[in-house]
Amino acid sequence: MGDGRIWIGLDIGGTKTEALVVDAQMGVLSRVRASTDTADPECLLAGSIQLIHRALAQANGAVSQVGGIGIGIPGLVERETGVVRLAVNLNLTAYPLGAALTAALGIPCAVENDARIATMGVYRWLNEQQPVRHVAYVSIGTGIAAGVVLDGRLYRGAHGMAGEIGHVMVEADGQLCSCGARGCLETIVAGPAIARQYAEAAGLRAPVTAETVFQAYQADDAVAQQVMRRVSQALSRALQWLIMTYDVEKVVLGGGVTAAGAAFLDPVLAELAQMRAQSALAQEMLAAHKFVVLPTDFNAGTWGAVALAQQG
Amino acid sequence: MGDGRIWIGLDIGGTKTEALVVDAQMGVLSRVRASTDTADPECLLAGSIQLIHRALAQANGAVSQVGGIGIGIPGLVERETGVVRLAVNLNLTAYPLGAALTAALGIPCAVENDARIATMGVYRWLNEQQPVRHVAYVSIGTGIAAGVVLDGRLYRGAHGMAGEIGHVMVEADGQLCSCGARGCLETIVAGPAIARQYAEAAGLRAPVTAETVFQAYQADDAVAQQVMRRVSQALSRALQWLIMTYDVEKVVLGGGVTAAGAAFLDPVLAELAQMRAQSALAQEMLAAHKFVVLPTDFNAGTWGAVALAQQG
Repeated sequence: MGDGRIWIGLDIGGTKTEALVVDAQMGVLSRVRASTDTADPECLLAGSIQLIHRALAQANGAVSQVGGIGIGIPGLVERETGVVRLAVNLNLTAYPLGAALTAALGIPCAVENDARIATMGVYRWLNEQQPVRHVAYVSIGTGIAAGVVLDGRLYRGAHGMAGEIGHVMVEADGQLCSCGARGCLETIVAGPAIARQYAEAAGLRAPVTAETVFQAYQADDAVAQQVMRRVSQALSRALQWLIMTYDVEKVVLGGGVTAAGAAFLDPVLAELAQMRAQSALAQEMLAAHKFVVLPTDFNAGTWGAVALAQQG
Repeated sequence: MGDGRIWIGLDIGGTKTEALVVDAQMGVLSRVRASTDTADPECLLAGSIQLIHRALAQANGAVSQVGGIGIGIPGLVERETGVVRLAVNLNLTAYPLGAALTAALGIPCAVENDARIATMGVYRWLNEQQPVRHVAYVSIGTGIAAGVVLDGRLYRGAHGMAGEIGHVMVEADGQLCSCGARGCLETIVAGPAIARQYAEAAGLRAPVTAETVFQAYQADDAVAQQVMRRVSQALSRALQWLIMTYDVEKVVLGGGVTAAGAAFLDPVLAELAQMRAQSALAQEMLAAHKFVVLPTDFNAGTWGAVALAQQG
């Protein structure tokens, strides 16, 4: 890739779209953002093309220099064809986004699910620091999902569902989840669940955000401590499952909730330390160096999209 | 492999060793068994060579016809070098079993961990019935472990620990496990754990076997029903974890405990049906057709060893 070509990563979210342009040496040439226009597929396409042109202009680049574009989409994507099967938040159903962008721009465009693409970004980020071939990326925000690179390759599973751990049952007869089941991991560890548990335990009537809980935790609020204990117990067991099934070298935690920093992480790390203390196996498999938190200023989505573009 | 060569699979267990000789069309030429002599590495080697010669004689085969030998070992094995790093039950430490057998017989010998090799056997068995590329094999006996084939390839993980689910914590402050931790999956679902839970719940002084519990369950014994409910809850959640992490097409259950048949399986299938009833996602991911029980007369170990031999 040292041929002077430039590469574009596009992270299309339900609210915002971000474009990243890098040179052959992975140096950032430009980074631009815009609201995502989800009115209909044509608006989304036009908005994406406009943002790509804006990013290129800011990078002083020309379409003819672009080696490829990688695009991350929050939804069900056919990687091979670039067809977005279903992206509820983007108002897309069976839409050939890859082909439409390629036709409009004359540049190869590859489309992939956003969680997978973020995993590719995380994998590349880790490998800039040290060589690793087995990595799980756990994204914790409104929902929870894991993406995995196994033996150096993004692993999708038989139906593209590998790592959908948000809906694994962790508590019998627990809280009702959006999926219809009870006691899913998301009903305890996701951002809205953290807020809900705190509001319930504290007897609050007005809804709170997870951020409120983290602040209360930092201020030694007993209810927040109790909620975070419960959250971190469920999460640390999920992390153990991930490690014992995938046997990854690193588990990277990211997503909106991890941005809380110490208030979210300290209790999780304390739980893991407690598990390590119990057995030699846990000491090895749950070693502290395996758990990494993604820096909040690293956009795994756009970097992963660049990686996808370069894979073609 | 239609060249007239024959292949040998050797399943070396802590108690018995079994050898299987097949022709190029995978037809069984002979199957022989002997006690495993674990007195020292030389005895184990001599016993293995003797059994191979006996199997060949019974198959009317000659050493010169053998394309390769695959060997399964209950322990930590370096697949590439054929060195058995540690096999406690076989009294082997850092022993170059592959090289020793190759030198003695003049035949290429490949060595692999027995759980992995059984997974290869299960994978081949499944593919004789229908094409599948993502399979988990869960062996439930004295211990519990899973082996996986992902995208058609045996997956080992970064440290050869992928699928070691027996020691994942499923019950906080549960029973003390042999690994030193509390509440591991093995403390509820493994054969000895099933026996222990029944003896405790029934207030028995004399130890019982898992078989006793299964018989009591079949006879509508209330305590056995209660124990099996607990066992099947823990197991069905573990199966959900396996499916949501690996997204396999099939989960095959085998090992000594599954030989109990309906008494073991019916409550597990009932739990899974209950989970399916809760959500559309579970209905799809935990579909009944994904769960298969290995026939008790199918020796996954020797068939997997044959598959290993043919891979070279």
